[in-house]
Amino acid sequence: MTNPILELIHRHASVRHYKADPLPASVIETIVAAGQRASTSSNLQSYSVVAVTDPTKRVRLSELCGSQKHVAEAPVFLVFCADLARLDRACQLRGYTQETGYVESFLVATVDAAIVAQTTALAAESLGLGICFIGSIRNNLPEVIDLLELPRLVFPVAGMTVGWPKRSPRLKPRLPLHAVLHWEKYDRSSEDEALRAYDRVMIATGIYEGRQVPFPGTEGEMEEYGWTEHSARRASQPVRTGLRAVLEKQGFELK
Amino acid sequence: MTNPILELIHRHASVRHYKADPLPASVIETIVAAGQRASTSSNLQSYSVVAVTDPTKRVRLSELCGSQKHVAEAPVFLVFCADLARLDRACQLRGYTQETGYVESFLVATVDAAIVAQTTALAAESLGLGICFIGSIRNNLPEVIDLLELPRLVFPVAGMTVGWPKRSPRLKPRLPLHAVLHWEKYDRSSEDEALRAYDRVMIATGIYEGRQVPFPGTEGEMEEYGWTEHSARRASQPVRTGLRAVLEKQGFELK
Repeated sequence: MTNPILELIHRHASVRHYKADPLPASVIETIVAAGQRASTSSNLQSYSVVAVTDPTKRVRLSELCGSQKHVAEAPVFLVFCADLARLDRACQLRGYTQETGYVESFLVATVDAAIVAQTTALAAESLGLGICFIGSIRNNLPEVIDLLELPRLVFPVAGMTVGWPKRSPRLKPRLPLHAVLHWEKYDRSSEDEALRAYDRVMIATGIYEGRQVPFPGTEGEMEEYGWTEHSARRASQPVRTGLRAVLEKQGFELK
Repeated sequence: MTNPILELIHRHASVRHYKADPLPASVIETIVAAGQRASTSSNLQSYSVVAVTDPTKRVRLSELCGSQKHVAEAPVFLVFCADLARLDRACQLRGYTQETGYVESFLVATVDAAIVAQTTALAAESLGLGICFIGSIRNNLPEVIDLLELPRLVFPVAGMTVGWPKRSPRLKPRLPLHAVLHWEKYDRSSEDEALRAYDRVMIATGIYEGRQVPFPGTEGEMEEYGWTEHSARRASQPVRTGLRAVLEKQGFELK
């Protein structure tokens, strides 16, 4: 079962090397307008996109995003924000007070922003552009918020580089389908088998460059380093621990 | 500037009336496998999808989701979950302890789930299927978590009905592009004008059925009811105020 849209989706890989060619504003408008067509909770459209093309700002954002050089290299950097500021203005104009204190409000705006971001990404890829989601936009939020002059109730969920790819990126295999798709209820019966299978697939790609690690519970026995080890290391590290304080300052109380 | 993918994206509207025809499991597998190709933070793939086809369960879910009858009517209901349980198992297998206490972990898993959901939605629409995001999956979370047997560190972000549309749904206009797309920095200078313009567009669609409301700051003067009034009413209501307690119970501390 396939068609041009499924093929496009299956061709996706993050692009981290871009040509210097600028993107016309009309292209950015086309892909963000496509993003706007995505589903949005109660049609509230509680997101905004900031498009940064200014080279000095892109260099600064690259520094703030873990020194990822493609953030400076790509001609456009899009910042997808959860945005309750526009709704706040609507409330003000109509004589209401917005309720923004609960986790639910934060979740609605975050999911809105993520859905728009992914739709914008696919729209960009349909034009031959490459994209890369940049989660490290959350590494230095106070500085990003200052740089982009984000008001209260606006919060960057994800960055995205957009530009013409220098070369075709490499596709990364995903977990076996049965690891992520459950029928009727959540089912862990084949979880370990799926993790082992995926480890083998990821090791075979050479992504982890033949690193070895001690086999747990043995002394000295070594085994190959796969996705499970790689991801466990990552998931056991506390990251961006200051997020909550920034969110509170932006007006998201998360109660 | 257009192409079949942009056209597909622009055709999206939520489908709330479905034919009874069941969907073959292979179709669900195709669209969720497409969803898997979407970007995922650090390739952690911290999401899961529960596909519900059982008619009794769909009726129960429909009751739990604000009695939306299309949840029972559509042959398949997908529940997109933020999932750190699989990573927890990876940590356990490799001798690490996962860090799940910060807002960042919750955000990463939520955004992963939302991006997969939207990619799955577009994949479904590319096959002629209709979809509707169901945010009210969060109306009665403890019951949904029980029904789907979701373990600790798994949390439903969004539901989605999938099936063959009974009729073409109606497209809803979105905010003017300049209301959501900012250049170089967040810019509110045309916000009020955009809200007024959108009110006029939405009133013209007849969606609000010619309702009238008092003009703020006047006595008795009436004006038409538009998106600003509609959304301000919605945004001023506290909804799903119990979310935080459920998240904590599922292991998301949000510190």
